Amino acid sequence: MKDATTSTFNKYYPNEPAEPRVVTDTIPGPKTQSHLESLSRVFDTRPSYFVADYDHSLGNYIADADGNTYLDLYAQISSIALGYNNPKLIEVIGSKEMKNALVNRPAMGNFPPMELAHHSNVLLKFAPKGQTRVWNALSGADAIELAMKAAFMYFMRIKRGESNYFTPDELSSVMDNKPPGSPDLAVLSFKRAFHGRLFASGSATCSKPIHKLDLPAFRWPHAEFPFYEYPLDDPENKTKNQKEDDRCLKIVEELINSWDIPIAAILIEPIQSEGGDNHASPYFLQGLRDITLKNGIVYIIDEVQTGVGATGKFWCHEYANIDPPVDLVTFSKKFQSAGYFFHDERFIPNKPYRQFNTWCGDPARMLIAGTIGEEIMKHNLLLQVNETGDYMFKELEMLQSKYPKFFGRLRGKNRGTFIAWDLPTSELRDELLAKLRINGCNVGGCSDKSVRLRPSLTFEIKHVKIFIRILDKCVGELYN
Amino acid sequence: MKDATTSTFNKYYPNEPAEPRVVTDTIPGPKTQSHLESLSRVFDTRPSYFVADYDHSLGNYIADADGNTYLDLYAQISSIALGYNNPKLIEVIGSKEMKNALVNRPAMGNFPPMELAHHSNVLLKFAPKGQTRVWNALSGADAIELAMKAAFMYFMRIKRGESNYFTPDELSSVMDNKPPGSPDLAVLSFKRAFHGRLFASGSATCSKPIHKLDLPAFRWPHAEFPFYEYPLDDPENKTKNQKEDDRCLKIVEELINSWDIPIAAILIEPIQSEGGDNHASPYFLQGLRDITLKNGIVYIIDEVQTGVGATGKFWCHEYANIDPPVDLVTFSKKFQSAGYFFHDERFIPNKPYRQFNTWCGDPARMLIAGTIGEEIMKHNLLLQVNETGDYMFKELEMLQSKYPKFFGRLRGKNRGTFIAWDLPTSELRDELLAKLRINGCNVGGCSDKSVRLRPSLTFEIKHVKIFIRILDKCVGELYN
Repeated sequence: MKDATTSTFNKYYPNEPAEPRVVTDTIPGPKTQSHLESLSRVFDTRPSYFVADYDHSLGNYIADADGNTYLDLYAQISSIALGYNNPKLIEVIGSKEMKNALVNRPAMGNFPPMELAHHSNVLLKFAPKGQTRVWNALSGADAIELAMKAAFMYFMRIKRGESNYFTPDELSSVMDNKPPGSPDLAVLSFKRAFHGRLFASGSATCSKPIHKLDLPAFRWPHAEFPFYEYPLDDPENKTKNQKEDDRCLKIVEELINSWDIPIAAILIEPIQSEGGDNHASPYFLQGLRDITLKNGIVYIIDEVQTGVGATGKFWCHEYANIDPPVDLVTFSKKFQSAGYFFHDERFIPNKPYRQFNTWCGDPARMLIAGTIGEEIMKHNLLLQVNETGDYMFKELEMLQSKYPKFFGRLRGKNRGTFIAWDLPTSELRDELLAKLRINGCNVGGCSDKSVRLRPSLTFEIKHVKIFIRILDKCVGELYN
Repeated sequence: MKDATTSTFNKYYPNEPAEPRVVTDTIPGPKTQSHLESLSRVFDTRPSYFVADYDHSLGNYIADADGNTYLDLYAQISSIALGYNNPKLIEVIGSKEMKNALVNRPAMGNFPPMELAHHSNVLLKFAPKGQTRVWNALSGADAIELAMKAAFMYFMRIKRGESNYFTPDELSSVMDNKPPGSPDLAVLSFKRAFHGRLFASGSATCSKPIHKLDLPAFRWPHAEFPFYEYPLDDPENKTKNQKEDDRCLKIVEELINSWDIPIAAILIEPIQSEGGDNHASPYFLQGLRDITLKNGIVYIIDEVQTGVGATGKFWCHEYANIDPPVDLVTFSKKFQSAGYFFHDERFIPNKPYRQFNTWCGDPARMLIAGTIGEEIMKHNLLLQVNETGDYMFKELEMLQSKYPKFFGRLRGKNRGTFIAWDLPTSELRDELLAKLRINGCNVGGCSDKSVRLRPSLTFEIKHVKIFIRILDKCVGELYN
């Protein structure tokens, strides 16, 4: 294994702190509390962990208003790809293209900037296999909903046949939100899925009631997502897990045949992230491809959290080698920019202005996305993520032997640094996260009782060593 | 009237072109066509008017890839407040705050930046009367949908009473997208309204079938929006228009009482923009306030297009002096940043994470929004907009006398530069817009046969003179 100190990427952050440093007795500390107090007059601060001082954050370390510096394994809910104050990104901000993107914000559909083809082509260099086009959005939820729109239009196009003519009845009923112009169509998603919190994306989301309560929803179905035994490569688990896959695939087919609204698309995360880091096997993901092809249904992979390298491949679903490739792949978070990739020209609507809005994405964020992608390639960061992840996973397995009850269902082997495990209870999980933070490690949870690791791609073995030492200490204190 | 050459704002653009300049025989010109050809391999270019060269655009003039320079009265679909390459915005891009916002994109809910209170407070300086808080979004449609979420949660909170307790039945049914957890609730909007193109915002939109076809919709009602006779200050029209207001208010009340889904909110643009620049009178807007109060319904004003100064007030609905103030006001476009203002603490959900997402807005765009607001105030641009608009309206009235058939229903008197009129047919409107463009004026349409003027707030009387001269020529050529 390569020594972390010789990593090509190490040069990025020569001034990174040697280790975390917590100078307050409580988190949030007094200065953060005073910031939160004034912020709370205008903003809902209840979800705040702490108020960050981004100017003093660097690389894998995030600083707060009190001068605490944490080793960051959460990275803005999995959204910082290359660490804080990345010099290459700072360089890009000074470019002419960035100035135009920010100061002269273009309505890219009507008045595309000369740079747009370049921005799009750079993004497409990182597109998953089989995807040749991109459509831009503004957030993960927006990307999901625009992909849903593309899916519904495609589904109706195929249903109509090649003439693809709108009937007078469609043209009038749509203005009353009624079929046939506003058809009853559904997206099938999965239990414990998270696809965003707007109304259609929210109808596909099924992880926690708090995301959805009191909001009207489309009556769309949630199939069962396979729930595996870990480790996945244990032969006995393998047999059990494939049975679980077959059970869940059968439910998907049954829902397609029985649901009272036609299913136009299936939407799935290759690893359910917010919902608990539940993995979908290559077998399951290919099974869905077979079902969608057989039933004329659009297949959408949601890579908003799993995409852009943290699993050790640029896109997590590449591990499944789905054949033929899926129809639409959404992205956001670590790419900063959002949108969906697609491969089939028929996903371009038959008329302009059907998939459209004033901004059609954000060129400033597209420029940043392209730079992030190029940095990942230039510095061979996928290799680094795999090395770091493998090392971290082995270390966690050792802690698992030491504290078996506190490392339930350890998952993410051979998936880079995209690692999670379960505590016995939600309370213990929250206690562990608080203890980690006061000891200088910023770590997030997911689902009810899971810990999820989401460091930047710049996380190195030297950082793992610090984290494991602190984790060992914190779990040790809680374990008795 | 103040002479344009002494305008305080004139100093911003001393190097602005003296007049438009078109050097190609066709628009799009050959270079734009070649750009579009390569762009079309990755992007849907059918809506493109031309490919813009933002680097060579300045102030009120937009350049294209062929070296054409147009006087811009469309401003990126009403989204550029202060002209192109505004020096103050360029300055802000170089700030430390902008670097943090772009390079270290914060998940503002969990890890708010130290600057967030400042950004929010600056935005709130420009909030409409009665609004004391702001929630951030990423686009106009996103702002509308987040405001809808706030409205639904508030409506249910009031319905539940102060205990505001979720029942076990709500907590389980919501996971199946069924009532009572996912209640059937509706937003009442208006015919010809435009509120965005996602699924809930799309259900409220009712301007053109093309925005909505093939997409599932919520079964929400569209009431009639008053259709006035212009000029509004003509005494005979006044009487007719108030009757029209009463007719439409009655329909709103009837829908509230008869619709089979409870109406939780009313959503309206003070001037329907995409739908044809249809004005709502102060009387009508106050009537809706009375109805919403009487029926316990949330009142949302959509200022996405009308907001940020172009009507001569910072927010268009301020003309109506609605009392008490409306509940939620959405913004986007000219503010670059998006979101909604609100005044009542009860619009903060009872629990955290109900109104939430990873990014909770974009601090880079909030910073730009604040700068735009401050520049508007510093340079007294609302006064300038009113002067320029009054001058332009009078000039248009003169053209109306000359070519009455081509200036039908001229609207926007005393509403700054927010001006529109009708051509006899959709074809003639399109022909006029094309002719204006080849003569150096970039102007947009709305609805079927309207022309809408949407210059930046930096548009001056000297620009009006150029525009009117070219318009006179173009209409003259078409009129016979």
